[in-house]
Amino acid sequence: MIRIAMLGSGFIGRFYTDSLQGYRSRDKVVSVYSRTEKSAKKFAADYYVPHWTTNLEEAIAHPEADVICVALPNNLHEEAVMLCCKYKKAVMVTKPLGRNSVEAKRMLEAAEDAGIFNGYLEDLVYTPKFLKAYDSVKNGALGRILWAKSRETHPGPHSEWFWDLEQAGGGCILDLGCHCVEIARSYIGKDIKPVEVMCWADTQVKPIDAEDHAIGLVKYENGSIGQFEVSWTFRGGLDLRDEVMGTEGTIWINSFLRTGFEMFTTGKGADYVSEKAESNTGWLFPVGDELNELGYNHMFMDMFNSYEKSQQPKETFYDGYIVNAILDAAYRSAKNKLWEPVTLDVWRGKEGVSKDQHLTEYDNEHYLVKEEVTHYGAKKLILKNKSTGKISEKTLE
Amino acid sequence: MIRIAMLGSGFIGRFYTDSLQGYRSRDKVVSVYSRTEKSAKKFAADYYVPHWTTNLEEAIAHPEADVICVALPNNLHEEAVMLCCKYKKAVMVTKPLGRNSVEAKRMLEAAEDAGIFNGYLEDLVYTPKFLKAYDSVKNGALGRILWAKSRETHPGPHSEWFWDLEQAGGGCILDLGCHCVEIARSYIGKDIKPVEVMCWADTQVKPIDAEDHAIGLVKYENGSIGQFEVSWTFRGGLDLRDEVMGTEGTIWINSFLRTGFEMFTTGKGADYVSEKAESNTGWLFPVGDELNELGYNHMFMDMFNSYEKSQQPKETFYDGYIVNAILDAAYRSAKNKLWEPVTLDVWRGKEGVSKDQHLTEYDNEHYLVKEEVTHYGAKKLILKNKSTGKISEKTLE
Amino acid sequence: MIRIAMLGSGFIGRFYTDSLQGYRSRDKVVSVYSRTEKSAKKFAADYYVPHWTTNLEEAIAHPEADVICVALPNNLHEEAVMLCCKYKKAVMVTKPLGRNSVEAKRMLEAAEDAGIFNGYLEDLVYTPKFLKAYDSVKNGALGRILWAKSRETHPGPHSEWFWDLEQAGGGCILDLGCHCVEIARSYIGKDIKPVEVMCWADTQVKPIDAEDHAIGLVKYENGSIGQFEVSWTFRGGLDLRDEVMGTEGTIWINSFLRTGFEMFTTGKGADYVSEKAESNTGWLFPVGDELNELGYNHMFMDMFNSYEKSQQPKETFYDGYIVNAILDAAYRSAKNKLWEPVTLDVWRGKEGVSKDQHLTEYDNEHYLVKEEVTHYGAKKLILKNKSTGKISEKTLE
Amino acid sequence: MIRIAMLGSGFIGRFYTDSLQGYRSRDKVVSVYSRTEKSAKKFAADYYVPHWTTNLEEAIAHPEADVICVALPNNLHEEAVMLCCKYKKAVMVTKPLGRNSVEAKRMLEAAEDAGIFNGYLEDLVYTPKFLKAYDSVKNGALGRILWAKSRETHPGPHSEWFWDLEQAGGGCILDLGCHCVEIARSYIGKDIKPVEVMCWADTQVKPIDAEDHAIGLVKYENGSIGQFEVSWTFRGGLDLRDEVMGTEGTIWINSFLRTGFEMFTTGKGADYVSEKAESNTGWLFPVGDELNELGYNHMFMDMFNSYEKSQQPKETFYDGYIVNAILDAAYRSAKNKLWEPVTLDVWRGKEGVSKDQHLTEYDNEHYLVKEEVTHYGAKKLILKNKSTGKISEKTLE
Repeated sequence: MIRIAMLGSGFIGRFYTDSLQGYRSRDKVVSVYSRTEKSAKKFAADYYVPHWTTNLEEAIAHPEADVICVALPNNLHEEAVMLCCKYKKAVMVTKPLGRNSVEAKRMLEAAEDAGIFNGYLEDLVYTPKFLKAYDSVKNGALGRILWAKSRETHPGPHSEWFWDLEQAGGGCILDLGCHCVEIARSYIGKDIKPVEVMCWADTQVKPIDAEDHAIGLVKYENGSIGQFEVSWTFRGGLDLRDEVMGTEGTIWINSFLRTGFEMFTTGKGADYVSEKAESNTGWLFPVGDELNELGYNHMFMDMFNSYEKSQQPKETFYDGYIVNAILDAAYRSAKNKLWEPVTLDVWRGKEGVSKDQHLTEYDNEHYLVKEEVTHYGAKKLILKNKSTGKISEKTLE
Repeated sequence: MIRIAMLGSGFIGRFYTDSLQGYRSRDKVVSVYSRTEKSAKKFAADYYVPHWTTNLEEAIAHPEADVICVALPNNLHEEAVMLCCKYKKAVMVTKPLGRNSVEAKRMLEAAEDAGIFNGYLEDLVYTPKFLKAYDSVKNGALGRILWAKSRETHPGPHSEWFWDLEQAGGGCILDLGCHCVEIARSYIGKDIKPVEVMCWADTQVKPIDAEDHAIGLVKYENGSIGQFEVSWTFRGGLDLRDEVMGTEGTIWINSFLRTGFEMFTTGKGADYVSEKAESNTGWLFPVGDELNELGYNHMFMDMFNSYEKSQQPKETFYDGYIVNAILDAAYRSAKNKLWEPVTLDVWRGKEGVSKDQHLTEYDNEHYLVKEEVTHYGAKKLILKNKSTGKISEKTLE
Repeated sequence: MIRIAMLGSGFIGRFYTDSLQGYRSRDKVVSVYSRTEKSAKKFAADYYVPHWTTNLEEAIAHPEADVICVALPNNLHEEAVMLCCKYKKAVMVTKPLGRNSVEAKRMLEAAEDAGIFNGYLEDLVYTPKFLKAYDSVKNGALGRILWAKSRETHPGPHSEWFWDLEQAGGGCILDLGCHCVEIARSYIGKDIKPVEVMCWADTQVKPIDAEDHAIGLVKYENGSIGQFEVSWTFRGGLDLRDEVMGTEGTIWINSFLRTGFEMFTTGKGADYVSEKAESNTGWLFPVGDELNELGYNHMFMDMFNSYEKSQQPKETFYDGYIVNAILDAAYRSAKNKLWEPVTLDVWRGKEGVSKDQHLTEYDNEHYLVKEEVTHYGAKKLILKNKSTGKISEKTLE
Repeated sequence: MIRIAMLGSGFIGRFYTDSLQGYRSRDKVVSVYSRTEKSAKKFAADYYVPHWTTNLEEAIAHPEADVICVALPNNLHEEAVMLCCKYKKAVMVTKPLGRNSVEAKRMLEAAEDAGIFNGYLEDLVYTPKFLKAYDSVKNGALGRILWAKSRETHPGPHSEWFWDLEQAGGGCILDLGCHCVEIARSYIGKDIKPVEVMCWADTQVKPIDAEDHAIGLVKYENGSIGQFEVSWTFRGGLDLRDEVMGTEGTIWINSFLRTGFEMFTTGKGADYVSEKAESNTGWLFPVGDELNELGYNHMFMDMFNSYEKSQQPKETFYDGYIVNAILDAAYRSAKNKLWEPVTLDVWRGKEGVSKDQHLTEYDNEHYLVKEEVTHYGAKKLILKNKSTGKISEKTLE
């Protein structure tokens, strides 16, 4: 049994606790911190938490708490982490790690200096679909990865602090882009260096200072491209889709709006209130088990199993730092309209990877460009002469 | 912590144990029984089970086992249950409960006489999608339920005993129909009496004595229809789909082949072996988390929570008995080509429910037949005169 | 150029004319008959038809009309056909051919005696998806066909005469079942004799005398099963789906509600009226080109090309008669709850087809029951001893 | 009846002719030009074309040809158009209009100076799904358009000249991007000026000089973003998907790989060859009627109807020129990694459009940021103070 202090009693703190104490879990939240007494008390009552407080340090220092789970607004992550270092408590921080890579790097270095377990709670690389897709990619089902796109768009976040630039540190790039960047990076290879970023961002709809819509391209050292599409202006629910292209295959994942459950309702049936969707009549697409589909269960399983075995979890502060560094480049690019280099003071992956060689030889004199079956059932080849570069067609009966 | 003795070390015993000991579970399998020593030993090693045996009674009587989980071929269910009664152990039995309703009734009565906890492991009414859909239905989103169809078809079961009529007690009707019948019955209402069954069955492909394809209609006392479509001859994977029609809405659920994960692979990538699908190249549709999608996690959570609280779980031997009684009628119908009454010696639901009244009044003289918006944007009504029965059309501008 | 007299100016007459005069068609409607002058005039104006009349015989006898297209309520088909025989005009009749097989047979015999071109306007075996799927089936992509299901359900027909039992001759079985029966029959083989029918039907929702929901099974001489699911009570739009199972493959077709076009709208945008769907906010699934998706274009192309070449079209009165005979058996079955024989006074297909032999030999002593790849990558076989019938398992490394 | 001279007898010439002479068409190809005699003869025989030639001018000058249809490699478009001007023949040119905007502009000016009918054969803005989606967008169903993405990727073109940079003028940007740009531009508004482009392009897989993968963003004067994703390296078939986001709604269109027709085949059935897909076993997704789904029928209907009425078709050389100008900017951007301005010597749309005002007022002091229904059924508002900019939350019971 692991005993957790939950910092934050809002939307994400509740989601985490539903997962942590879900199924037949042996783990337990023993203390909860909230900025307001009312919310702390309600949370403690709802989840049978024996201790609550509005004092951050008190929750972290709580003698029964083995692991500190940080589910606070972005601007409070660093303070919480530093207190965990002080009390030598294992710590897991919600995404994004910092508001920028400077904060993230300070947290990374402090945690490593203190020698404490540090986990980065990036749930979307723990969804069951991602885990299975990732295995297929690693086993070569898609060949060499060329492009990985992740899209997260919805009509805007739930809590008010997200909309405040000071507390949040950014708009939808920081809030949603952190997911997308880590998903694409995982498919491409976490040991491949991200080198530069091009990003468009705009405030198209909302009366806010931060961006509410952005699209970015992240170029990796091996020539692969990661793409993120994020928005707080999407209409239709929570759109969570990934696509991966490789030389030998393709993956498409729809993690929310189209998972195989479809309902039409006229709305005339009594007492029905649909949850989370933008509408509650017409065709709806409920998700069976959101906690599981969104990766929370597998994420905490990895975190806690790793903690018990004194191993590193799949996602650490180091990963959170890399993501922040990529997003920093995205923000600079959105401002100055240039491809911006990713600045990485800390890098633990490969160096100097070059673009893969990829010519397919047909015979001594030709490369194979394409092979296809024609309407008439014959096999058609398109070839390129190695020396002259001339393209030719060849039909095999 | 609940300590389980697992009877059976085959496909389903392993699936159950993956779920029971999955995530951060506090529960543990403490003994395993198998018909062969080799299989028992391998299971014990794979799942860290401290005790194994090839003696059924020894596993059930094991002093540390609180709950007995029966994952044996159909012909061994009754013997196992009777031993659980003898040792007063809580018992959970995989589907179908018996090979027929006579066996099922004996198990039901023995378990209730012995006063032991009895659970019926019908996982497909515990899938996350079912649970959410069921809530919507109960909350009225679909209005009055008219029809519920459940389809389970695949290219045939894994273990050899399924293909043997004596051990299995039937073919795909018993193996798969039990799921479908309970799903439809749940949507229609478990307190509504099933009254008669019409079933077609045939052995179209496989060299076996049992049926490998069947379609059945189950009529309920309130006029609703449950439908099952089952086969061991389907090509394309595991097809698991439900449909529900109500006066105010519709539900479609695809629990396996289309859950939002799509992969294309040429198969040229090294080392890739796809699991469970019929092919491992071309377009594939992997399921992220089979254990969860198939309902095992939520099923055992209900079972064990109920056990700890000394409550009845959602599915008991009583439900298993009702399902067996419906399937008995299906087998009789397939043989004699008549609508066959469902014989229920034990019935704990409503009696004498009549078909719902369902006329929608338009005005004093007319019933409303249909209302629609025309191409021209006008509202068109089709009405029926209450006394003459005459149909007329009326357009509202 | 073919010159058409259109009998009927309602929903289906308009749909037909949109198709007949669509794209860059060389054909033209030259006369229109309607039961009311107002409707005839409006139709003539909308479609630039030079001649209109409320006299049925006048339209049919019209000297410029080469082909008569019957788009009238079911109870008027026979009269129209008899007049075409009198004037020796080519005739095409909308579905169903008759209100029952007695009417259909009279029309079939009269047309053949008169030696006139006769076409049966069953559009749904001309949809582009059906045509392509049918080719695949005929080319063996699915192996031997075991089962073909067609489903057509919606919230009820547009015109008032459908709801009147005398004019329509039946409810949703006749209106929609005629489509489904011909679709399934085409996949199974139009030369294979339908032998018996089991049908459930009920009036579950609408205040009418006819059935508003029905499910039927049609058994063919070779053991294949055709299934129809029809309803006027479905909520969610027009549900038009087919499924085919063969020993080597599967086909699923969604012809309407899920064709790859998805739209979400809050409904706040000005001036938007969605057409045909049950709702006009939330997620909608428009069909790009209804005329083409529903088969009208390919149907008339076959009809007119056949007419010009003095050949039989794919669908003739004979097919309409077979369909009516199957539906007659369905109505009898729904009433008396028995499998009812299909009575065919006219039958031009094969006779005495037996169930296909289908044992797959493994070696001299065994039949192959199933072959699969285990989790461990080994190949597992399930075999049946030819003489003892014993089932065994064999694993190939 | 319109009489056509078809220039080009390859893949696209055949596709065009299948459409032109399809259904019950009144139009006819009367002459065909090909670069090789063998191909010209075969085409003439297959399509019953009375005249063939290997002399370009002869085909254009053919006295019976009313309309010249240019289906030639990109580098031959200009020569063909100039000859049409010389002979004052109506001309329709396949996409892209030119290899660059300089060529396109010369063709535009020559055609307008000669006063001839000019059509730009961009079929993908004529697909039935596009036409319907476009109507919804124009009617306001999606509110103000924020972003429109079009994706076209496949495993590479059929004919050898595409792979040759001199003949083609570019790689997948020119070949596929021209479609995508015009689709997005249409949704956003063809009268809204495209101002700048950011594009990434690379040759990731093929042994060619041109790009085989590219992603681009096109910024319009009103702040809307058009996005294109194009590739010749995609595995899995032809991926043709569009997405549109507006303030009030969303559209997703899948025009090829998921159109509601799904087939699984083991491939053991005799004689089956699947067409166009990358595989012919496993799950396949055939398209019912490719000609119609890809827009050819509706495109030629608009072209020929416009020609007969002496009107401009929806797509003219002017549109082809705008597309070329955008693609030129994309190529420059891919090379120098900057947002590149779109240079338009000819512009006939609006000038000086500013970003739309889009603040939603809540009350005198606040703007509305977001409104949502909480888990508890209460309505929650997020507001922004007009003067202080402070974000606050307000819950309405």
